[in-house]
Amino acid sequence: MKQIVPNWLKKRAELTPNRIAVMFEGNEYTFKQVFESAARVAAQLTGIGLKKGSSAAVLISNHVDSVMILYALQMLGVRAVILNNRLTSKELLWQLEDSNAEVLLYENAFMEKVTKIKNTYQHVVLEKEELFKGNSANADLQEEYDLDDVTTIMYTSGTTGNPKGVLQTFGNHWWSATASALNLGLTDGERWLCAVPIFHISGYSILMRSLIYGMTVILHHSFKEREAIEEIISNRVTMMSVVSTMLMKMNDILEVGQMPETFRGMLLGGGPAPLSLLEDCKRKSIPVYQSYGMTETASQFATLAPEYGIEKLGSAGKALFPNQIKIIDEGGNELTNGSEGEILVKGPNVTPGYLNREQETNNTMNNGWFHTGDIGYLDKDGFLYVLDRRSDLIISGGENIYPAEIESVLLSHEDVVDAGIVGMEHPNWGQVPAAFVVKKKVATISENDLENYCRERLAKYKVPKSIRFVEELPRNAAKKLLRKELREWLKRELT
Amino acid sequence: MKQIVPNWLKKRAELTPNRIAVMFEGNEYTFKQVFESAARVAAQLTGIGLKKGSSAAVLISNHVDSVMILYALQMLGVRAVILNNRLTSKELLWQLEDSNAEVLLYENAFMEKVTKIKNTYQHVVLEKEELFKGNSANADLQEEYDLDDVTTIMYTSGTTGNPKGVLQTFGNHWWSATASALNLGLTDGERWLCAVPIFHISGYSILMRSLIYGMTVILHHSFKEREAIEEIISNRVTMMSVVSTMLMKMNDILEVGQMPETFRGMLLGGGPAPLSLLEDCKRKSIPVYQSYGMTETASQFATLAPEYGIEKLGSAGKALFPNQIKIIDEGGNELTNGSEGEILVKGPNVTPGYLNREQETNNTMNNGWFHTGDIGYLDKDGFLYVLDRRSDLIISGGENIYPAEIESVLLSHEDVVDAGIVGMEHPNWGQVPAAFVVKKKVATISENDLENYCRERLAKYKVPKSIRFVEELPRNAAKKLLRKELREWLKRELT
Repeated sequence: MKQIVPNWLKKRAELTPNRIAVMFEGNEYTFKQVFESAARVAAQLTGIGLKKGSSAAVLISNHVDSVMILYALQMLGVRAVILNNRLTSKELLWQLEDSNAEVLLYENAFMEKVTKIKNTYQHVVLEKEELFKGNSANADLQEEYDLDDVTTIMYTSGTTGNPKGVLQTFGNHWWSATASALNLGLTDGERWLCAVPIFHISGYSILMRSLIYGMTVILHHSFKEREAIEEIISNRVTMMSVVSTMLMKMNDILEVGQMPETFRGMLLGGGPAPLSLLEDCKRKSIPVYQSYGMTETASQFATLAPEYGIEKLGSAGKALFPNQIKIIDEGGNELTNGSEGEILVKGPNVTPGYLNREQETNNTMNNGWFHTGDIGYLDKDGFLYVLDRRSDLIISGGENIYPAEIESVLLSHEDVVDAGIVGMEHPNWGQVPAAFVVKKKVATISENDLENYCRERLAKYKVPKSIRFVEELPRNAAKKLLRKELREWLKRELT
Repeated sequence: MKQIVPNWLKKRAELTPNRIAVMFEGNEYTFKQVFESAARVAAQLTGIGLKKGSSAAVLISNHVDSVMILYALQMLGVRAVILNNRLTSKELLWQLEDSNAEVLLYENAFMEKVTKIKNTYQHVVLEKEELFKGNSANADLQEEYDLDDVTTIMYTSGTTGNPKGVLQTFGNHWWSATASALNLGLTDGERWLCAVPIFHISGYSILMRSLIYGMTVILHHSFKEREAIEEIISNRVTMMSVVSTMLMKMNDILEVGQMPETFRGMLLGGGPAPLSLLEDCKRKSIPVYQSYGMTETASQFATLAPEYGIEKLGSAGKALFPNQIKIIDEGGNELTNGSEGEILVKGPNVTPGYLNREQETNNTMNNGWFHTGDIGYLDKDGFLYVLDRRSDLIISGGENIYPAEIESVLLSHEDVVDAGIVGMEHPNWGQVPAAFVVKKKVATISENDLENYCRERLAKYKVPKSIRFVEELPRNAAKKLLRKELREWLKRELT
């Protein structure tokens, strides 16, 4: 049966008009104000010809204006193709053409990138301020949303091949938000600090929770550890979404007991976190909910429940209430004995598929089960441990090596700031692990010291066969390590 | 798109095995224990031939065994026809035959009623203890639930005509539970006191919330005001479902400041409550969430949000987040000016229809909008005020008279314990209001006194033209006033 619900922002503005919806750079906006602003933007978007069924690409940063644009598109029933603003012009053009978005809306900050593609791209290209100054037309705000309709499209970073546009329905966002609330609870005066990009599912899902829960989003233009801590302490933040590099930076300057009681937790996503970091957070009473999710599951899919935070440290917990996880071997058989294999997920927050990619959709979907391409296992109590991306797996003399495990050891060294592991071809073993390491500016540690450090903590075949010190590691906007890029670096060095 | 979710009780037992699921008569049962017990009962139910697609009627009271039976039926995919245990044998037989339930499971306490129908009813009739002692078979516990599948059938009391079996899907219960959480919040250690019948949607919906939220149900065999208050005070109850007569009895003996801080609120349903009661609760700091809902909406549909408890006293609030309400006139036109009319509701918690009653289903459903038959209006801020059942409306000389309004005035008199108003035929006015009143045992008030009391507070045409003192008023298991019964009383007296 069709699931029809009222327009989220409009309904929210009716239910709790005076609650604060968004805080940004010292200003507060109630749900009523946000609805009215977004409705004005919707009229301007209608003025440039957008309507239900259209699709519009947006190239934006974390800003209250971006929130209004995203909400306006949603209320009009326009599919928002939400672009990653760190992409190159070439990458942007590829996604614009792939999605066939009718309009590209962009912020002035990205003018340079847009200028390069303006002539090639065949559709309307419009700067935000031009939109806001332009003509309005009578907007057809959708009274109801059909949960099966697509509302956003986000391209996956894709460790191999071209990125694919992930279709996200209203239902995907709805189920993601409610599943999260059933796990984390929902208290009066909830305030979620959003310092992750809103063009990424980690940030966009906070906006959707805001509408569905009636919760305040405190939006930061970009992540700065000191500002984030200051915000949490002085503005009664209850939750914050982080990836491990963000948490690491905050942890570095946070003191024991500094987190206020009102702060309920860090929702940690974006890949496995080093155990040493999680232990450190525990020691400092920084509550961390390790989670597992992706663009294709509209954010969190599994989260470690509060009562298991200590006992199962390092696990991403269990699949949220409406969700299911299973592990399969290479032959597609379900593994129920705790063995490692590919992680498959099923639930109403899983994407219906990829835009215009029937083949890829069919390849990754099997009777409702989505093949994540990630490697992990379920322990005897059913807790998920994510080992790595399958495409990042290093196979050395028949042994599986998970880069994240070695990175975790390197990161536990006091002189190491960041670390990345990729496979390097080897005549005897097929592949061996190679390390890229960012060390502290004042550190005097040598490659040899680090090798010895690893040797004491890892099986011999897992010890990196080469260690390279670098200034910085390639990470995407969600701070995810780009191992594909590291492999390129390695190739260039070796040839 | 189909919405598929994992088996609720099984999933809940996996997620939070050690949380307390049910407290009953001094015993505690964790989710793991409840799952194991329900799985055993499922095996016994399989032993008597029940399987996915079957339907089984249950005649039970509030007891932990009943919870196990209901959960077992749900896990097997058997439709539970949940009978009202206050019905007469004749009424029960009618529902059994209408639903064509394959089995009637009953508790020993209802032996007498069952004995009377045993010979007429053509299917298996089995006492609870016999079931529990019987043979088990390999139970096919459903791994997944399709939200479109029907899991329960409850007959509506039906103020006119024969009762109809309301189909309730997994989705109806799911959306009801999540919509409620989005409004009331969801805190750690939630404990809901259930002293309303679990055969009624008010009680059954607490069980569903328990599974979906991972929340403790404190189950009382029946409502006793002193025991309820004692439970709230000593056992950290956070929420309790009540109808106004229950709340009145508790209010009568509760002192100011007696409710502990941990108690979040009374969810008040089952029809309009007298304003005087709500004001009294406010004075005693008993938090009350007035709500509007019915069997056809799988419990609450609208609830007064915390922030409006005072300003909109007497309102049932706004439709919950996924829900919509509109008011129509006799001609079916939407009324947007605050006028009174029939209340129509739409949302994913609304029943797909009545069992085997295509005609009635079509009559009450219109493009997703369900005609409640209730009369009410939306004020200028969109708050719902429920006036009365349309079938209870008294039309007197062209004026609409809502029984609930007059009852509310009568109940505000200190000597009145209960009051019911129905229409009485009248040669000049068509109808006039007639009152049935239960007065305090020690009270010396006369019919005349009460008439004068009403005259000071109501328009002349609303003042009851006859007042009868009675011992008790007819109320159903949900404590709803049975005005149909009162009309019978009146008819008998007048002929």
